[in-house]
Amino acid sequence: MAMIDFQTEPSRYRHWRIEPEGEIAYLIMDVDQAGGLNEGYELKLNSYDLGVDIELNDAIQRLRFEHPEVRAVVLKSGKDNVFCAGANIRMLGKATHGHKVNFCKFTNETRMSIEDASDNSKQTYICAINGNAAGGGYELALAADHIMLVDDRRSAVALPETPLLAVLPGTGGLTRVTDKRKVRRDRADVFCSIEEGIRGAKAVEWKLVDEIVPNSKWKETVAARAHEIAARSDRPADAKGIKLTPLARKFDGDRISYPNVDVEIERARGLVTITVRAPSQPVPASADAAQALGDTFWPLAVARELEDAILHLRANEAAIAVVLLRTEGDAKAVLAYDDFLEKTQSHWLMREIRHYLKRTLKRIDVTPKSFVALLEPGSCFAGTLAELAFAADRSLMLIGMREGDNRQPAAITLGAANFGPYPMGNGLTRLQTRFLGEPETLAAAEKKIGVPLEGEEAVELGLVTMGYEDFDWDDELRVMLEERASFSPDALTGMEANLRFAGPETMETRIFGRLTAWQNWIFQRPNAIGEQGALKLYGSGVSPTYARDRV
Amino acid sequence: MAMIDFQTEPSRYRHWRIEPEGEIAYLIMDVDQAGGLNEGYELKLNSYDLGVDIELNDAIQRLRFEHPEVRAVVLKSGKDNVFCAGANIRMLGKATHGHKVNFCKFTNETRMSIEDASDNSKQTYICAINGNAAGGGYELALAADHIMLVDDRRSAVALPETPLLAVLPGTGGLTRVTDKRKVRRDRADVFCSIEEGIRGAKAVEWKLVDEIVPNSKWKETVAARAHEIAARSDRPADAKGIKLTPLARKFDGDRISYPNVDVEIERARGLVTITVRAPSQPVPASADAAQALGDTFWPLAVARELEDAILHLRANEAAIAVVLLRTEGDAKAVLAYDDFLEKTQSHWLMREIRHYLKRTLKRIDVTPKSFVALLEPGSCFAGTLAELAFAADRSLMLIGMREGDNRQPAAITLGAANFGPYPMGNGLTRLQTRFLGEPETLAAAEKKIGVPLEGEEAVELGLVTMGYEDFDWDDELRVMLEERASFSPDALTGMEANLRFAGPETMETRIFGRLTAWQNWIFQRPNAIGEQGALKLYGSGVSPTYARDRV
Repeated sequence: MAMIDFQTEPSRYRHWRIEPEGEIAYLIMDVDQAGGLNEGYELKLNSYDLGVDIELNDAIQRLRFEHPEVRAVVLKSGKDNVFCAGANIRMLGKATHGHKVNFCKFTNETRMSIEDASDNSKQTYICAINGNAAGGGYELALAADHIMLVDDRRSAVALPETPLLAVLPGTGGLTRVTDKRKVRRDRADVFCSIEEGIRGAKAVEWKLVDEIVPNSKWKETVAARAHEIAARSDRPADAKGIKLTPLARKFDGDRISYPNVDVEIERARGLVTITVRAPSQPVPASADAAQALGDTFWPLAVARELEDAILHLRANEAAIAVVLLRTEGDAKAVLAYDDFLEKTQSHWLMREIRHYLKRTLKRIDVTPKSFVALLEPGSCFAGTLAELAFAADRSLMLIGMREGDNRQPAAITLGAANFGPYPMGNGLTRLQTRFLGEPETLAAAEKKIGVPLEGEEAVELGLVTMGYEDFDWDDELRVMLEERASFSPDALTGMEANLRFAGPETMETRIFGRLTAWQNWIFQRPNAIGEQGALKLYGSGVSPTYARDRV
Repeated sequence: MAMIDFQTEPSRYRHWRIEPEGEIAYLIMDVDQAGGLNEGYELKLNSYDLGVDIELNDAIQRLRFEHPEVRAVVLKSGKDNVFCAGANIRMLGKATHGHKVNFCKFTNETRMSIEDASDNSKQTYICAINGNAAGGGYELALAADHIMLVDDRRSAVALPETPLLAVLPGTGGLTRVTDKRKVRRDRADVFCSIEEGIRGAKAVEWKLVDEIVPNSKWKETVAARAHEIAARSDRPADAKGIKLTPLARKFDGDRISYPNVDVEIERARGLVTITVRAPSQPVPASADAAQALGDTFWPLAVARELEDAILHLRANEAAIAVVLLRTEGDAKAVLAYDDFLEKTQSHWLMREIRHYLKRTLKRIDVTPKSFVALLEPGSCFAGTLAELAFAADRSLMLIGMREGDNRQPAAITLGAANFGPYPMGNGLTRLQTRFLGEPETLAAAEKKIGVPLEGEEAVELGLVTMGYEDFDWDDELRVMLEERASFSPDALTGMEANLRFAGPETMETRIFGRLTAWQNWIFQRPNAIGEQGALKLYGSGVSPTYARDRV
């Protein structure tokens, strides 16, 4: 299979169009049926594969960064009489288990990013369903804040996965129906059993959509609603966007380099090292000066590069089990940028950048690889970059100096960035999650803001997992990595998915934890993927044969 | 495979002993290695199978009902130098996927019932670990309120599933480590990677156990701690228990009859009908008079019979997809008993009975079958029995009378029982979950307490899913059941597991929702159960071979 690339740009889109009209923008899904990421299926009826979603993800990002003037986004279909038929079934039928799981994860993240734009950027999504919205099509609508359905006696919303395909709606549909839309559970059960879905007044009564609109008033009502919602936004009216230019990314054998991030793969050890570099330029003089730097402004550049690296490893390097997280450079410089972002947070772009960093860190939280942060002399785990250590499953600190290396001992330095702006999916910061039920430990950490914490002190405060001195370091690390590499990858995925999210659950953790796990289970069952299973036989005219045991 | 029977009694125990000593009792695990439920494995080192857990479940129930004087229970091993080695691996290696899942579910419920006894009956569990507690052995300890570990330089607690068996701790271990014991996530990660576990002072420091005690002071310290905890209980000192006598259960072909519950299986339709009958005797004059009835007292009898029926269907009737829930008799009689339990709730036995009904209803919530409640003339869905309708995935009400049947139209009658005593695992009542985000609908329902709500009114209030008149009833029901029977059993299990628990998540929903789903996924993966998988090769001396893809 060819490498899956998560980078794209509007001029290369085959499936989406962005049409800005002042304070509102139309995001139009118009899937090119011949534009599948792989061979062997046609993307009919606005059905999608990962390639379609990569463009959607890109479009959502660009709307936030390139179009600050847009206060409401109308998600709609560019085809007549069909909104979106959901994930392409023939694609799912042919895909490996790993690809299916990874596809669902990325599409879930994309839907979350729609909600993040509405909630946190006040660039609010409205979905205008002009045709059938089935399965993933309706789940896309569910990510919007306001769902409009044309009342033409035909257009319906549906989650037909269970009756039709023997799987679950895989992008949060079940969770959003009960928890976001608050559809009564028995009605949700009925709804999820009806292939053809529900339309008209009943769709409103059951809270599946927010309003229905007759065909004759469709276009004007959608526009009116978008302007109403736009009027409630706090976004600046006169801001100019910045351009997200192509990433300066170089592939060189098993090495991928970006300006601020390096990725080095050691295939034999099932290992990759990601190194993030501190900013080398001083903090800009003002938010406007930062904006003038465009996407070379360090925090934005790091978010983009790190995100691309994580997505690349997930999709293209399944055999890699462990990710070592390293940092390099001046911790003070990292903290200065954090400080800058904190002080300028009312600026639309600085706000966007912090939310982008938050989303990028969340991608680590749901990545099925073991993350180990290495805090060594020369590293800069401070503020935002210290979140990498807290996102890791384990962190190892080298205590003291390294023989033959005159750099100062490793330190971790906390900043305001570790106490608020980057919550995990569970709604807590990584430190709150880490010290769940230990408010006094959390408070002790907070008192150390700005203080470089070395060795024993960092261990004592609970900020790193283990500390080793130079003469033990290599052996301890080697043994740990060999051990990790010897474990079953599946058990590690399940273990990490359970240990990473202590504390409260949210719609987000439910989707990634509960729904995803059930879907993964079902994606392996013969009733779905066996030779007589529903995914395999879909479209063949032959009905699936199910093993009848309820498990 | 022989029928799995969930009924037992101490005289038949092979693996446990209850030793009451006044206000404390010792619950001693001493597994007979030749006493496995099936052939092909030996229950060495206090390892367990479903049969061992059936006895444990019985013992926990009996301690609550037969020993009201017991205020603290000490869970310990009857063997030297070993506490419990967890679920038997050879058993898991040979078991079908369905049996593994069902085994984990029941053992999880049993551990929850230990916590329920501590929290709600003030019969508090202490675990005295005198030897190794590994995997399910440590998970058993985690269910206790207070964990004591002997400090003998040998005894350790461990969750070695991931390194040793390529599966997860399946009875809540991961969740309880992070969410109940609040072990830091990176320490939890380390702990779950160490085959031999953690012992001594470090086990206390990492919050894995509450205290360590030298061998020389072990017995007296355990007893002292038990008496300290017993002193905090509100249980009556002078109460006499009641005897849980063998269930009057009759198997007759595809029919199982109990005094208050009937079960009728229609194999060809993949269907079973459970009918619960209202009490035929008037309410006793007092709590003491109720106690004098022993386990024939209607609410207790119904809890036992319904629980047995559900467990039987889960374990022995996997091919049954749909459970029809029916009730028969006088709704007023049901409400009178509810009223009686409400008024006498300070009596230890009445309290026990309500918690038992709660636990029985929760078993329905996690049963992998579709539940459909049928509200027909002659039914008595009132108060406690109305919970059956709210536990169901759907409820159908027959509107008006039936031709040729002079019984009054079906009604649903709410009572105080629907607004508090029977919370689901999410901590909400079934009506709160049903009307999540609609406090006004919930309030409207509450205003109708005591009023029989027929047909359209019940539908209007959102208390039933659908209403049909007599001339439509049979067809609508038949079509619905045929449709349900045509769906993939796996997709239904996943769908129901997601739709049944809207709203907040708790440790309990995390265990049944998130952890269970990941475990089920892993239980199907070749790395665990393939010919080269860890469960298959365990004990053979051959190392497993893992597919290395991280999914």
